[in-house]
Amino acid sequence: MDQDVVAGGSAQFRNPIRSGSEYIESLRGRKLKVYLMGEAVEEPVDHPIIRPSINAVARTYDLANEDPELASAVSPLTGDRVNRFLHISASPGDLVMQNKMQRRLGQLTGTCFQRCVGMDALNSLHSVTYDLDEEHGTGYHARFKQFLARVQRANLVIGGAMTDVKGDRGRSPSQQADPDLFLHVVGVYVSGAKAHQTGCLNSHWLIVMPTMRLEAADNDYAIAGAIPVDADGITYIYGRQSCDTRSAEEGNIDAGNARFSGQEAMIVFEEVFIPNELVFLDGEFEFASTLVERFTCYHRRSYVCKTGVGDVLIGAAAAVADYDGVEHVSHVRDKLVEMTHLNETIYGTGVAASHQGIAMKSGAYLPDEMLANVCKHHVTRFPYEIGRLAQDLAGGLMVTLPSERELRHETVGPLIEKYLKGRPEVSTEDRIRVLRLVENMTLGRNAVGYLTESMHGAGSPQAQRIQIARSMQIEFKKTLAKTLAGVADASRAQISNDLSTYMARVFAPVRN
Amino acid sequence: MDQDVVAGGSAQFRNPIRSGSEYIESLRGRKLKVYLMGEAVEEPVDHPIIRPSINAVARTYDLANEDPELASAVSPLTGDRVNRFLHISASPGDLVMQNKMQRRLGQLTGTCFQRCVGMDALNSLHSVTYDLDEEHGTGYHARFKQFLARVQRANLVIGGAMTDVKGDRGRSPSQQADPDLFLHVVGVYVSGAKAHQTGCLNSHWLIVMPTMRLEAADNDYAIAGAIPVDADGITYIYGRQSCDTRSAEEGNIDAGNARFSGQEAMIVFEEVFIPNELVFLDGEFEFASTLVERFTCYHRRSYVCKTGVGDVLIGAAAAVADYDGVEHVSHVRDKLVEMTHLNETIYGTGVAASHQGIAMKSGAYLPDEMLANVCKHHVTRFPYEIGRLAQDLAGGLMVTLPSERELRHETVGPLIEKYLKGRPEVSTEDRIRVLRLVENMTLGRNAVGYLTESMHGAGSPQAQRIQIARSMQIEFKKTLAKTLAGVADASRAQISNDLSTYMARVFAPVRN
Amino acid sequence: MDQDVVAGGSAQFRNPIRSGSEYIESLRGRKLKVYLMGEAVEEPVDHPIIRPSINAVARTYDLANEDPELASAVSPLTGDRVNRFLHISASPGDLVMQNKMQRRLGQLTGTCFQRCVGMDALNSLHSVTYDLDEEHGTGYHARFKQFLARVQRANLVIGGAMTDVKGDRGRSPSQQADPDLFLHVVGVYVSGAKAHQTGCLNSHWLIVMPTMRLEAADNDYAIAGAIPVDADGITYIYGRQSCDTRSAEEGNIDAGNARFSGQEAMIVFEEVFIPNELVFLDGEFEFASTLVERFTCYHRRSYVCKTGVGDVLIGAAAAVADYDGVEHVSHVRDKLVEMTHLNETIYGTGVAASHQGIAMKSGAYLPDEMLANVCKHHVTRFPYEIGRLAQDLAGGLMVTLPSERELRHETVGPLIEKYLKGRPEVSTEDRIRVLRLVENMTLGRNAVGYLTESMHGAGSPQAQRIQIARSMQIEFKKTLAKTLAGVADASRAQISNDLSTYMARVFAPVRN
Amino acid sequence: MDQDVVAGGSAQFRNPIRSGSEYIESLRGRKLKVYLMGEAVEEPVDHPIIRPSINAVARTYDLANEDPELASAVSPLTGDRVNRFLHISASPGDLVMQNKMQRRLGQLTGTCFQRCVGMDALNSLHSVTYDLDEEHGTGYHARFKQFLARVQRANLVIGGAMTDVKGDRGRSPSQQADPDLFLHVVGVYVSGAKAHQTGCLNSHWLIVMPTMRLEAADNDYAIAGAIPVDADGITYIYGRQSCDTRSAEEGNIDAGNARFSGQEAMIVFEEVFIPNELVFLDGEFEFASTLVERFTCYHRRSYVCKTGVGDVLIGAAAAVADYDGVEHVSHVRDKLVEMTHLNETIYGTGVAASHQGIAMKSGAYLPDEMLANVCKHHVTRFPYEIGRLAQDLAGGLMVTLPSERELRHETVGPLIEKYLKGRPEVSTEDRIRVLRLVENMTLGRNAVGYLTESMHGAGSPQAQRIQIARSMQIEFKKTLAKTLAGVADASRAQISNDLSTYMARVFAPVRN
Repeated sequence: MDQDVVAGGSAQFRNPIRSGSEYIESLRGRKLKVYLMGEAVEEPVDHPIIRPSINAVARTYDLANEDPELASAVSPLTGDRVNRFLHISASPGDLVMQNKMQRRLGQLTGTCFQRCVGMDALNSLHSVTYDLDEEHGTGYHARFKQFLARVQRANLVIGGAMTDVKGDRGRSPSQQADPDLFLHVVGVYVSGAKAHQTGCLNSHWLIVMPTMRLEAADNDYAIAGAIPVDADGITYIYGRQSCDTRSAEEGNIDAGNARFSGQEAMIVFEEVFIPNELVFLDGEFEFASTLVERFTCYHRRSYVCKTGVGDVLIGAAAAVADYDGVEHVSHVRDKLVEMTHLNETIYGTGVAASHQGIAMKSGAYLPDEMLANVCKHHVTRFPYEIGRLAQDLAGGLMVTLPSERELRHETVGPLIEKYLKGRPEVSTEDRIRVLRLVENMTLGRNAVGYLTESMHGAGSPQAQRIQIARSMQIEFKKTLAKTLAGVADASRAQISNDLSTYMARVFAPVRN
Repeated sequence: MDQDVVAGGSAQFRNPIRSGSEYIESLRGRKLKVYLMGEAVEEPVDHPIIRPSINAVARTYDLANEDPELASAVSPLTGDRVNRFLHISASPGDLVMQNKMQRRLGQLTGTCFQRCVGMDALNSLHSVTYDLDEEHGTGYHARFKQFLARVQRANLVIGGAMTDVKGDRGRSPSQQADPDLFLHVVGVYVSGAKAHQTGCLNSHWLIVMPTMRLEAADNDYAIAGAIPVDADGITYIYGRQSCDTRSAEEGNIDAGNARFSGQEAMIVFEEVFIPNELVFLDGEFEFASTLVERFTCYHRRSYVCKTGVGDVLIGAAAAVADYDGVEHVSHVRDKLVEMTHLNETIYGTGVAASHQGIAMKSGAYLPDEMLANVCKHHVTRFPYEIGRLAQDLAGGLMVTLPSERELRHETVGPLIEKYLKGRPEVSTEDRIRVLRLVENMTLGRNAVGYLTESMHGAGSPQAQRIQIARSMQIEFKKTLAKTLAGVADASRAQISNDLSTYMARVFAPVRN
Repeated sequence: MDQDVVAGGSAQFRNPIRSGSEYIESLRGRKLKVYLMGEAVEEPVDHPIIRPSINAVARTYDLANEDPELASAVSPLTGDRVNRFLHISASPGDLVMQNKMQRRLGQLTGTCFQRCVGMDALNSLHSVTYDLDEEHGTGYHARFKQFLARVQRANLVIGGAMTDVKGDRGRSPSQQADPDLFLHVVGVYVSGAKAHQTGCLNSHWLIVMPTMRLEAADNDYAIAGAIPVDADGITYIYGRQSCDTRSAEEGNIDAGNARFSGQEAMIVFEEVFIPNELVFLDGEFEFASTLVERFTCYHRRSYVCKTGVGDVLIGAAAAVADYDGVEHVSHVRDKLVEMTHLNETIYGTGVAASHQGIAMKSGAYLPDEMLANVCKHHVTRFPYEIGRLAQDLAGGLMVTLPSERELRHETVGPLIEKYLKGRPEVSTEDRIRVLRLVENMTLGRNAVGYLTESMHGAGSPQAQRIQIARSMQIEFKKTLAKTLAGVADASRAQISNDLSTYMARVFAPVRN
Repeated sequence: MDQDVVAGGSAQFRNPIRSGSEYIESLRGRKLKVYLMGEAVEEPVDHPIIRPSINAVARTYDLANEDPELASAVSPLTGDRVNRFLHISASPGDLVMQNKMQRRLGQLTGTCFQRCVGMDALNSLHSVTYDLDEEHGTGYHARFKQFLARVQRANLVIGGAMTDVKGDRGRSPSQQADPDLFLHVVGVYVSGAKAHQTGCLNSHWLIVMPTMRLEAADNDYAIAGAIPVDADGITYIYGRQSCDTRSAEEGNIDAGNARFSGQEAMIVFEEVFIPNELVFLDGEFEFASTLVERFTCYHRRSYVCKTGVGDVLIGAAAAVADYDGVEHVSHVRDKLVEMTHLNETIYGTGVAASHQGIAMKSGAYLPDEMLANVCKHHVTRFPYEIGRLAQDLAGGLMVTLPSERELRHETVGPLIEKYLKGRPEVSTEDRIRVLRLVENMTLGRNAVGYLTESMHGAGSPQAQRIQIARSMQIEFKKTLAKTLAGVADASRAQISNDLSTYMARVFAPVRN
């Protein structure tokens, strides 16, 4: 495999990226086909609506420098310290550290920093390629590790692309009227489209993966592999976000969080070439569901990132209350406690999933599936309630504030200064800034990530409920009840079978 | 009192307004001082961001024509049929019909139509001026009825202005460093500012009222009266809303609900003249709390309007599910049921408050206070949950959709048509339109009204809790419990006293 | 029809019952076959476990004397004032007064007073027999009115018996292996069993009704009629309740509410005779669902009674807090507010259903179906939360209290007096009494009525969800959304059709 | 220290207890003063109401034999394998194993097995005595370890006694009118009373501890030490539980869970001797709050036991649904999922608190305080909701079932067999048994432990909210928000200080 191929097709990635600013530079000049607001974007790096999402990724580079313990790890593949987003978890502790890094980055950016999909894709592929080789005698695992080592050395960003557009939901991929509604192989090419792709055009590589369980007839759809972001045949259609154009306005108040935001786009693949060395699944359809399940297991618990975002929103609500002089009123305090309780519940269930992680044959560790699903399921509920409470504490002003231009206006500015003043020692501008942040996180650009994407990313709520149902061992629990109730048929054999399964999950060996 | 004064200072209102379009014309050419996005707005009627809020009010005129039973009533003052927003409720049935009109207008506009504050202010002043005269021998009630009759004849829009900016929340109005932080009388003028004013610059008249209980020292702040919207000395600073600038973009998809929205502004009064004939409270500080309490009693139950908006959102979520072919999946159906259950709870408690209304001495009817507060308190919770469920059913696409310009784009448009198609018989554009409506109502312009304004309008949640605490007759309930528990000291005298109070509320005479 | 027949087969009912105590006497000597705790009960009136349920019914007689406006009404059938439980609602106001009486009786008894099933059965049969006659040319309505008039004159208690034991839930009545699993006609007799019958053996008459929609093959199961409680062939198997035997212990503290409780039994009918004059449905299977739907419509809103019980529990929790000296602590106050908010929500939606009642052809009024279901659905949730909050405020002592015998014990009594004292001026016994009441209502005898029966009576939660789904007019709501979204196919014809249906429900004519 | 002293004053404990049955024997003949239902209990072991609580403790002995990995550990003090309830956690893994054992015992008993208070008291005292010695130069830690080693060798049950009766809640211990309202030292004796003591008279030793923060004036109340359960001067007043007398009835169905239950009593101490060797705190008042805080930190997370009980209740609800043939109906399935989701949330947050445990100077590990509080706070909410859903699935029959005697009755039994049959292949008795178990857990004896004690044990909900407020690092969060909002005064110094505190908690070193 040629180094250039791994580096994303461009010679400038021979040297590893060493900082957020080098990362930003690495994205320039790639000639991507990106459409936003009806126009082809010349240079995404300089587009005011796109740039905040690039800044968020850049922060992941800087954190690795500032706090290497937290945001990097020593790779067994290279022997070097690599960005944690590129590291394969080799212990429960590694899984937990992912969560801690995720929370910290949520705190620092107040948004989705877009690298978890790639991290979780790499972690899943590590064990899936191993198991696949064991079953089929293929050589995917070695290929995958070679790719990974090079990516680690060059310190690149990997985006994951999973969600097909799906077309008619009652039909399988191979039954669709239009074969492109799921990404599929056509000779040495892939065609199709992936929707809602977080952090794609600010990545260097995309890893494409199937989106669901496949049958034999769908074997053309059983494709996983790595593709440079700037490969021929790819078109990015950038998604609009609530209030996105505020990022393009003068000033930096109305955006609420001017520096950081998420990014989601639809990626259209029109006969995109993918060389053999970069293919990690190709036709072994029965492994599609394995890959999807392991990926979602990692990814559902990765939503611990939202607790970092929640920390920001709790802080913003407290700051508004403080600016209004009511922070210590009992109902205000009580609402901050409730927000914290909910936020920490997400954190607790997420890290518990990681702590209870189990070893795969490849040596990679996989989180506890039940708890990963429980974590994500809370993420589909609690950020909405935390957001509601933040709006309660912020007061109505957050949606009736005039624009920054009025604040700067010769005639109107002084009226705003006079009338929108909080406590005397707090500047009106600061009060407005924090209120705009609450707006940003509950209605604006970052509400998209904190709310809607919390709902649907890594699977909508019903997907978690299906998974919880599968793991809830209801026969075992019925036997517990029947035994205590004195029901005669409470089969002892059944108990002991169920119990051993049960114990294998809940009572996973604990490492001291 | 001169007819012109009542008509808002402008000759053109001599003839009654007969339709939504005449209403819109009536707003032209008023030379208001309105600031929005850093600029003085030449003609608000033609401003793309402001216009949807004017359209919403216009709809109230048209509904009165289309369904006079619902949206108009015969005024005892004039003997004519008048718009229901200008009618004083003379029976519980009148109160209920307000709610039914409010729900219908919510259904027709999907937003706040901004006339309830005025309606509720008129209804409150009817009985407050009557009681005030009885106490003080003043002549406010006759003045008020004269003003009302003229407004009814000219068929004008009344805005209510209550919420002062408040400054330091630990101090009363007269204790503030800056006297202007609450609206107050200076000779024959008023000065100060009212924040978060819904439907102000698209009204013809403003009724100013105190915002809270006042003490003797605050008597300059005990002022209520009517002021033409275009009076000298008034400046309107228009509030930004989430996604407001989409209303100014080309096309009509991305706005979600292109035609209708709400309006909120800060109104600054700099020595605004208010003639005696239009003053309805002037220094009788002890009636400030009476006015506030009656107003909030009407207004908290007026939030039944949100059930109409909720109907739209439930319908939008169902339409998306239908377009995706999953409307009859059990969890989808169940979520629609839950949304309906919550929505109807708001409706049920609101109309119950109206049905249980009681007569004031002036002949006006006032809703049941406990149920009005219960209704509003649900409004601070349930729209958020309904919105959350709508986002659940809508799917992630609602926040990753490309802009309308991409849909119309020569190159990208066909890709969107191909890949964002739902069921074959549904057009991609229609699917996008309904998704944009969900975005509009849960994150965008009308989320402001459906969510944040539901939280804070007519008093934040804690205000309802205080009022519920005041009305909860806890001593009566303790006596009930002690009696059943066999506690010896359960005083019979106390029971019978409490009971009669209790019966007066809950067991209000029912009219067959 | 012979007077004796109507009077329940016993000569002593020729004179109307005039008070609770006369009612209790009327129940003596009836030779019922009642089994409880493995024994045939000689005289239920004197059985300590049964008596509290008889006391609760007696309270309905006394209230009619104490407050005739509330608990009685003038019957158009007889021209006399009759107990409201025997009155057919001839206006929305009548329906509302039922709710107000129900709440008051809940306050006075803290339990289920067991007469609503009968009241709601009579009200349903009034219109169903009328419509049935109109369709089939039968004479049920006149028969029914004759029966009703006599019952009104004799002032008797009517129990309703609807819930069949059902057997295999996947099969219809006629498909069951054992025909008795649903009550059915065998010649001039009925056989079968009705489970969970509230207030049966303390009634004078039972009205049997089908439990579900029937098909032609089930015509033997389409039977409704009146049967004296002491008819030959009936066996009552009394249900155990949590803590039921405390009613049989010495003392009156540990029972919590020593005087009042509910009653539920299984009624087995073995060839019970039912004369023609007392049959109100016989084979017209298609009216079974009509009867069930109307009955549940009345009955779901009758659960407003639980708000009276809720008043007692809120009062008990407040009394405990008061005894502990913490009633005014902010979180305690806030919990009382929350309990009240939830309790009033049930009340509000219930009375709204009644206020929005509509006229049937027979002249009887039927509550609004959607709101009646919404009311009941809250009853399956909120009493549990109110109970949880009551336990929070009561403290752990409510489940670790020693028995009354310890309190009276020479040695231990003084220790309890010393150590379980609350505020100095409160007696330890009173503190214990109120705590035992909280136990009674959240874990003990009356928890059965306040919680579990709130869940399942008048239909389990899913039954309400099905009914809400049927009434939610989703097509109408979709059209509202599509219209605002600008979807081209939003059919105007459809709107106007749906709208008129919609308006017929929500915008029911309001009576001033 | 004399062996007899340690062994609880009785020679028979020289040999270690090796099984549940030996444990039961060890409790005989102790001449305790126990009062229940107004009578002195001769031999608690044979009292039908008390025995189930002894059985539950016995189960902890048997589990240690059946699954030593789970329920025992090697003690560094003795070098021997000891029951885990007597082991000091020397790693996060030890803390996690406590939780796993707790869940398993909840599954096996369906109730509170009453040994966690003692376990958590021992764990707290380990580090508190160490820190205390370091501060005061005392020798408590060595004494404590000597006591512990002997208890481990004899394999005894330790009960913890913390909750004083408290008297007037507005006053400190030393300010009370009666000094006995808090346990206090009088010379070499202690006097006072402890309320709500779980698992006391089935223990061998009691450890008394202060209940709250103390001041210098309260130094007589700063006492911790070990007392044999059968010491002179102790009186046990046994608390009643809902349905407790069913345990004394014939048969074993109506009790629901005939074998196991909890136990709570008030313990009155009248001049009870406590030798120096068994005193672990004596006057060092400032360590009272340290002890209370560490104890509650362990104990709040010990409520993971309720997830085992929850497993039983989920299983019971599923079994009922299965017996009715509706287990796979979508709403039934969905409710089981919701119950599981809530139950696993408690588990997840609890084990997360353990996994994130930190080392004390003594070498003992203490769980994460925030997550321990979050876990317990859920325990005050979710079991109620799980219980509500269980009642939903169980159906009304669970509260209208006849007694077991009716089932065995010659005449009535066959009627019950006929009419209360579920699916043909399920015996009516088994159906009744499982329904009685649901009653037991939601209204009966074990509802006390699953609900009310979940609410108040280890501190009522408000206690957790206070603790969450203390740990929520709101200044740190405000700084995060201000930084993103661009507020100028977001002090960098402050950030870095707060951050290091924050990191110390959330980002505790993870052990791979």
